[in-house]
Amino acid sequence: MEEGIIENLIQELTKLPGIGRKTAQRLAFFILAMTEEDAKGISRAINEVKEKARFCSECFNITETEICGICSNSSRDRSKLCVVEEPSNILVIERTGSFKGLYHTLLGALSPIDGITPERLKIRELMKRVEKDEIKEVILATNPNTKGEMTAQYIRELLKPFDVKVTRIAYGLPMGGDIEFADEVTLSKALEGRREM
Amino acid sequence: MEEGIIENLIQELTKLPGIGRKTAQRLAFFILAMTEEDAKGISRAINEVKEKARFCSECFNITETEICGICSNSSRDRSKLCVVEEPSNILVIERTGSFKGLYHTLLGALSPIDGITPERLKIRELMKRVEKDEIKEVILATNPNTKGEMTAQYIRELLKPFDVKVTRIAYGLPMGGDIEFADEVTLSKALEGRREM
Repeated sequence: MEEGIIENLIQELTKLPGIGRKTAQRLAFFILAMTEEDAKGISRAINEVKEKARFCSECFNITETEICGICSNSSRDRSKLCVVEEPSNILVIERTGSFKGLYHTLLGALSPIDGITPERLKIRELMKRVEKDEIKEVILATNPNTKGEMTAQYIRELLKPFDVKVTRIAYGLPMGGDIEFADEVTLSKALEGRREM
Repeated sequence: MEEGIIENLIQELTKLPGIGRKTAQRLAFFILAMTEEDAKGISRAINEVKEKARFCSECFNITETEICGICSNSSRDRSKLCVVEEPSNILVIERTGSFKGLYHTLLGALSPIDGITPERLKIRELMKRVEKDEIKEVILATNPNTKGEMTAQYIRELLKPFDVKVTRIAYGLPMGGDIEFADEVTLSKALEGRREM
């Protein structure tokens, strides 16, 4: 085997999470056997994400435009705002089909030990939205772990002066877990069972 | 979530073997968070493989040049020829470090039921090499399954008229398996324990 392009592709693929040497090898030879069109579809998609992805200036979701598709969709319920840690969480919640409001991405969770203070998150931007928009309910859908809990509590305190209902996503999710890995049914249940805090 | 570039990348990644929706999602957001340089390294490697990969005109290994790095390496033992089904098998054997001869890739295994007859494989080219080159031993390293066995037997018959030792890779490999998934130690043992047939 030429220690060249194939070996290089294998090395590149092992950069990805959960892809070890053997998996990378299998993927590389699979890619080699794909049609040129199919393989280039993958590389094009990677490039596009890196070239075009930006944050929505309203909610900090990933978008290609100034305002994301959810924020600019006039049929969404503008009185409900679901606060999440990461854009990937929006994708998971959207797939449940059980939430029709808007989102706000914090781009992280509080973690003083890692230097993640409130200023590092999009909390100021969240407060501005609550002040100016007609939001009636803020659903805190941060992760059900220590950092996510702390973040939810912190935001809950900040929102006390406002005439807005603040709810926390229900614990259908296993504690210590990550929204990323929840199945759609559990996540739907958690959204339905949200309680005031 | 914008049903756009991220969703597209997720879809593209699910084309790969063993990558389901959740894994693709995780990979897509990981790629999004990578440096542009790292991410583009992956897409470039995919494109390079599709644009530059070709078969070595001697042994049908994957190469970027007319003759692959192994065939053109003057320090390899030209008296030993290891016959494999696929270029990926060469990579695995090379990583054991226990074989210093040359290779010949059949680009498949006999399977009459699938229409894979001897003419569809690089068997004629193998015979030519045995005729003209100074090969003293042909090691049949096809997979230890029905097709691989049949292919080895077929080639063994063809080689009978020639003054060449024909060996079969030893059954350190579990029967019904695939060379692809063998660990390096087992594969080394199998190469060492090869027997004349």
